Amino acid sequence: MREVFHQSLEDVQNRLVEISGMVTTAIEKATTAFKASDIALAEEVIAADAEIDDKAHELDEIAIEIMARQQPVARDLRIVVMALRVSASLERMGDIAEHIAQLTRLRFPERAIPSGLKSTFGRMGELDVEAARKLTELLRTEDLAIADQIRDIDNQVDDLHVSVFEKVLSDSWSGEPAQTVDATLASRYHERFVDHAVSVAKKVQYLAEGGEFYASDGSAIGE
Amino acid sequence: MREVFHQSLEDVQNRLVEISGMVTTAIEKATTAFKASDIALAEEVIAADAEIDDKAHELDEIAIEIMARQQPVARDLRIVVMALRVSASLERMGDIAEHIAQLTRLRFPERAIPSGLKSTFGRMGELDVEAARKLTELLRTEDLAIADQIRDIDNQVDDLHVSVFEKVLSDSWSGEPAQTVDATLASRYHERFVDHAVSVAKKVQYLAEGGEFYASDGSAIGE
Repeated sequence: MREVFHQSLEDVQNRLVEISGMVTTAIEKATTAFKASDIALAEEVIAADAEIDDKAHELDEIAIEIMARQQPVARDLRIVVMALRVSASLERMGDIAEHIAQLTRLRFPERAIPSGLKSTFGRMGELDVEAARKLTELLRTEDLAIADQIRDIDNQVDDLHVSVFEKVLSDSWSGEPAQTVDATLASRYHERFVDHAVSVAKKVQYLAEGGEFYASDGSAIGE
Repeated sequence: MREVFHQSLEDVQNRLVEISGMVTTAIEKATTAFKASDIALAEEVIAADAEIDDKAHELDEIAIEIMARQQPVARDLRIVVMALRVSASLERMGDIAEHIAQLTRLRFPERAIPSGLKSTFGRMGELDVEAARKLTELLRTEDLAIADQIRDIDNQVDDLHVSVFEKVLSDSWSGEPAQTVDATLASRYHERFVDHAVSVAKKVQYLAEGGEFYASDGSAIGE
């Protein structure tokens, strides 16, 4: 039974790694399309999001089946519950990649990326992709040093997010309202993407350290 | 054992109703503060969000304990897993109320609500509050007619969300970039709030109808 459970967990982990890989591809294409105003690439991301959703739902059904059939308790149960939460975050990250692609399509053939913010969004896009790659690696290797690296990327993205508003609210900003809207939404999406990566990294970290599901809380369950 | 399980489920349901009530208060205060640029009320919402988070985490621990101790299967297990997802959505709705309050604080003493959009955001706020009230009622009564009412509210908010962008991108828009940013973020927050209410309503509905865990549109509750 124990053996079966560990095979099931391995399957769940492999699926999480696979979905995280799909999300990495999505954010890579979305940020590239956003930078280059590449409508074809944007359409690819929008079309591919349904696959990420399906994979996440498949994983959720498998996790629920493991709970029902193998009745894990204590830490084993928490790992399965975490898988459900991680798949929800990964699905949401895929949605955000799709939002960035939709923003590109919305303004096409004009550039969605406002002039004067090209390099800022270029860097935000690179950091989003880096965070997704790191997250995939974290889910695959459970090397906790990677969780700290993702937090560091999040701090860099937060700084860039602030700098976008400083730019847009400065006297030097000559953008049209449409560009102000795009900069606001795009910056928000880029920032939220990494937020989700951080929340997944935290969950992996707490569990790997044998800790509780939340930083704050208490007693071990189901012993 | 069956009896114990049903008592546990009742406790979980009561807690979800309680958290949904806290979220209703938060969005009511946040949208009122946003309309009136009431900094004291905004601070209240920001300070109270931690309580919503704690209540949600408490509920998650109880749900995990029920799984471990009572080992529910089939539909019973899905109900407990759904409770985990609903608490995640309610927590996220509380975060969005906090974001609206933070937007109010950010611009104080100036109005966060851009001139020309006062009535639009007034209506969006009313609809957000109505959606939260309906959601609490749905969680309490499991009256599925309410799920459709929440969907209807969502459609109204989506239309207003579109109208905000039409306004901001129209020639008549004379707002400063700061007001364009605020209108963009505020509209996005008001819209997302109801999205979460709809995804919770869908889960309640599909489970009550003994259906599958995911809505036909593939949407999943997630942060």
